[in-house]
Amino acid sequence: MRAALKSDRLCVVLVATRNPLNIGAAARAMSNFGFARMRVVNPFPAAFRDARSAVGASKVLTGAEEYATVAEAVADCTLVVGTTAVGRRTLQHPLQRLEHGARLIRKRMASDRVALLFGSEKRGLSNADFSHCHWLLHIPTSKGNISMNLGQAVAVCLYEFMRDVRAPQSVEKPAPASAAEVERMTAMLFDALYASGFLIRKPTSDAEERVRRLVRRLRLPARDMASWLGILHQIVWKLQTPAGKPR
Amino acid sequence: MRAALKSDRLCVVLVATRNPLNIGAAARAMSNFGFARMRVVNPFPAAFRDARSAVGASKVLTGAEEYATVAEAVADCTLVVGTTAVGRRTLQHPLQRLEHGARLIRKRMASDRVALLFGSEKRGLSNADFSHCHWLLHIPTSKGNISMNLGQAVAVCLYEFMRDVRAPQSVEKPAPASAAEVERMTAMLFDALYASGFLIRKPTSDAEERVRRLVRRLRLPARDMASWLGILHQIVWKLQTPAGKPR
Repeated sequence: MRAALKSDRLCVVLVATRNPLNIGAAARAMSNFGFARMRVVNPFPAAFRDARSAVGASKVLTGAEEYATVAEAVADCTLVVGTTAVGRRTLQHPLQRLEHGARLIRKRMASDRVALLFGSEKRGLSNADFSHCHWLLHIPTSKGNISMNLGQAVAVCLYEFMRDVRAPQSVEKPAPASAAEVERMTAMLFDALYASGFLIRKPTSDAEERVRRLVRRLRLPARDMASWLGILHQIVWKLQTPAGKPR
Repeated sequence: MRAALKSDRLCVVLVATRNPLNIGAAARAMSNFGFARMRVVNPFPAAFRDARSAVGASKVLTGAEEYATVAEAVADCTLVVGTTAVGRRTLQHPLQRLEHGARLIRKRMASDRVALLFGSEKRGLSNADFSHCHWLLHIPTSKGNISMNLGQAVAVCLYEFMRDVRAPQSVEKPAPASAAEVERMTAMLFDALYASGFLIRKPTSDAEERVRRLVRRLRLPARDMASWLGILHQIVWKLQTPAGKPR
């Protein structure tokens, strides 16, 4: 078993964000995935003010801390990771795909505080911002459009930290019906098929075998058998009732 | 090797979406992860019109198809999956966490067309919408806030389809310096430490061993050795130059 994720060990650091909706969206994703520690560096003043005063601003937003520089925002972290869309400049840093980078970040979060930096909507992080980072992270986007919306990029990164293939399934697959239950339904279906004239009793025909296989291929769940029997029962009853006779 | 993802086999179906920004955000995420097929069912008319006429509306948006009903929007698909935040109602469907559900969807996409439904911002998908689905998918959010923004939910789902732990790393780790290079730098550091008076030549002292261990713990990359040697060379030169003497 891997250790529980210490989600308060991750600082999501938004650098020079311009749009209050994006700050709000980042905060919402953090709340969705259980991360509380937001830091903003040198945001457009109106953006941060508007985001915090928005109706329904979350605890994440109201608790966000503001810093003048990247150096101050990451000072208490032992691992600093920048996000990048790549491609726009020659990177002087080791670059990790999110799938791999998230693993490294999770490991470090077991003992230390980690900062994950997101740049401005227009330009991303600058080379000066990158110089505070140990390595860079990129989301594996399609080559045709590498530039993600800030709030969506935050959501995807935090999801990757939280995803857990070993988590138990919330709901089990429905239990299949037993052969006896399926055969009981098949018998009632035969009644309906003969009563309706779809089948005609002829000893040489393999029609019954074909219908029996048809029913087996339905993979009927046990929980649905009562419904199907009820449906067929009613149809058979109606088929065997002379027209015009009141029920 | 798993098969390449046939991304044109997935239809992202937005049902009764209200906000044009969310339709635009869903389209942007689709473009980021290489999915082109968007379908909208009964959107708020202004929302779909505004989203399509927005500056920079993507190919995904301009190619989106509009349907009056869920049944029509998913008619050509063999697997229909609804997304849900869970918790608000008793679900009558099997429920899969995204990590597991994505695997089932990828498999089906190898041969068939799959529909992934997202509900309106206010109410999500209705029970009537769910009744067209084979099973439901949920993103493993924190219990404190299970309701995700539509555009972020689309981004997270599509990322999960595209993620690939077997993808090659973009950049390898920097090669470490050889012992000879490290020792050359250590020797130059000794020069600086003696010239500056930090170390004093005393045969009994283990100071040199301590400094040598200090340098080894830096795990210097090969590519940085020239820079460090240049820095130390300049410092040693300056330390050994009598004050006042012009360079």
